[in-house]
Amino acid sequence: MKFCTSCGDRVVLTIPQGDDRERHVCTRCEVIHYVNPRVIVGCLPVYQGKVLLCKRAIEPRKNYWTLPAGFMENGETTQQGAARETWEEARARVSNLDLYRIFDVPHISQVYMFYRCDIDDGAFGVGPESTETDLYTEQDIPWSEIAFPVVHETLKAYFRDVRQDAYPVQVATIDLSKLRR
Amino acid sequence: MKFCTSCGDRVVLTIPQGDDRERHVCTRCEVIHYVNPRVIVGCLPVYQGKVLLCKRAIEPRKNYWTLPAGFMENGETTQQGAARETWEEARARVSNLDLYRIFDVPHISQVYMFYRCDIDDGAFGVGPESTETDLYTEQDIPWSEIAFPVVHETLKAYFRDVRQDAYPVQVATIDLSKLRR
Repeated sequence: MKFCTSCGDRVVLTIPQGDDRERHVCTRCEVIHYVNPRVIVGCLPVYQGKVLLCKRAIEPRKNYWTLPAGFMENGETTQQGAARETWEEARARVSNLDLYRIFDVPHISQVYMFYRCDIDDGAFGVGPESTETDLYTEQDIPWSEIAFPVVHETLKAYFRDVRQDAYPVQVATIDLSKLRR
Repeated sequence: MKFCTSCGDRVVLTIPQGDDRERHVCTRCEVIHYVNPRVIVGCLPVYQGKVLLCKRAIEPRKNYWTLPAGFMENGETTQQGAARETWEEARARVSNLDLYRIFDVPHISQVYMFYRCDIDDGAFGVGPESTETDLYTEQDIPWSEIAFPVVHETLKAYFRDVRQDAYPVQVATIDLSKLRR
């Protein structure tokens, strides 16, 4: 961030009075520009025991498989966002959304929220951000080609929980420094 | 938003190619400026069956009572943010944070996340954003002076759940249009 969104003048990084961390503050109009984490909402869509995955048509992680998910938009709920993303990426309508997994990803200032849900009539297609979509059993999932750690964790948890037919909500942190080791 | 944070030129509201909603786009450098919901993290700090509340020293809802909560910062987890806010507002250190309540507040593009937790040694004080803090039983809570619907809902749910000693995670939506009726 170099310029103020209110007046167009230069911003500087400084600790505002009464604050305890650096913010971008306008040198002219003194507006403080806060930057906060973003929420990524997604679904774990299930039909007859199989999970719907999407092969990514876009970077990052193009050609790897993901659960449908994306940035939450202003004016929507987390459920609405998760359902919207599932339509956009996999052309599936979903019902009975139950919060399932939350991931803090502090090194990129993101919070993921995945909802477990049913796929209406088992119908799906291929949205513009996917090159391919399909329903997978645990055995058939391309485990070595999963796009993101949060997706891998959510899928592993689901196939573990399905044996007990109990799906407790859990929060976990993805620590990139550990993943890279 | 009037000016581009990258180059300082004017932005216009327009639907970028491949998108389906208006964004602020720079007329010169064409950068798209996304605006996304913000996360508010907080605690429901409990000591010997009593809940820690803070009387707000600042607007909005000055002089009303709240649970310690505030905007999540970049680079932290939701738990770390909730604990930080509890220190800042009530000078309490907390442990055993368990996710308890999530609220979508779409009319102001906010997502609240409250963690149930213990207060270390039952110690607390008054932070700069509070004029008063105290531990409350269900009977003593100033129910008519609670700052926000999300706080009211979380407190009501807690004192209901405490009877079963079971605290399932729940997601709810706060609909301002209904509240105002």
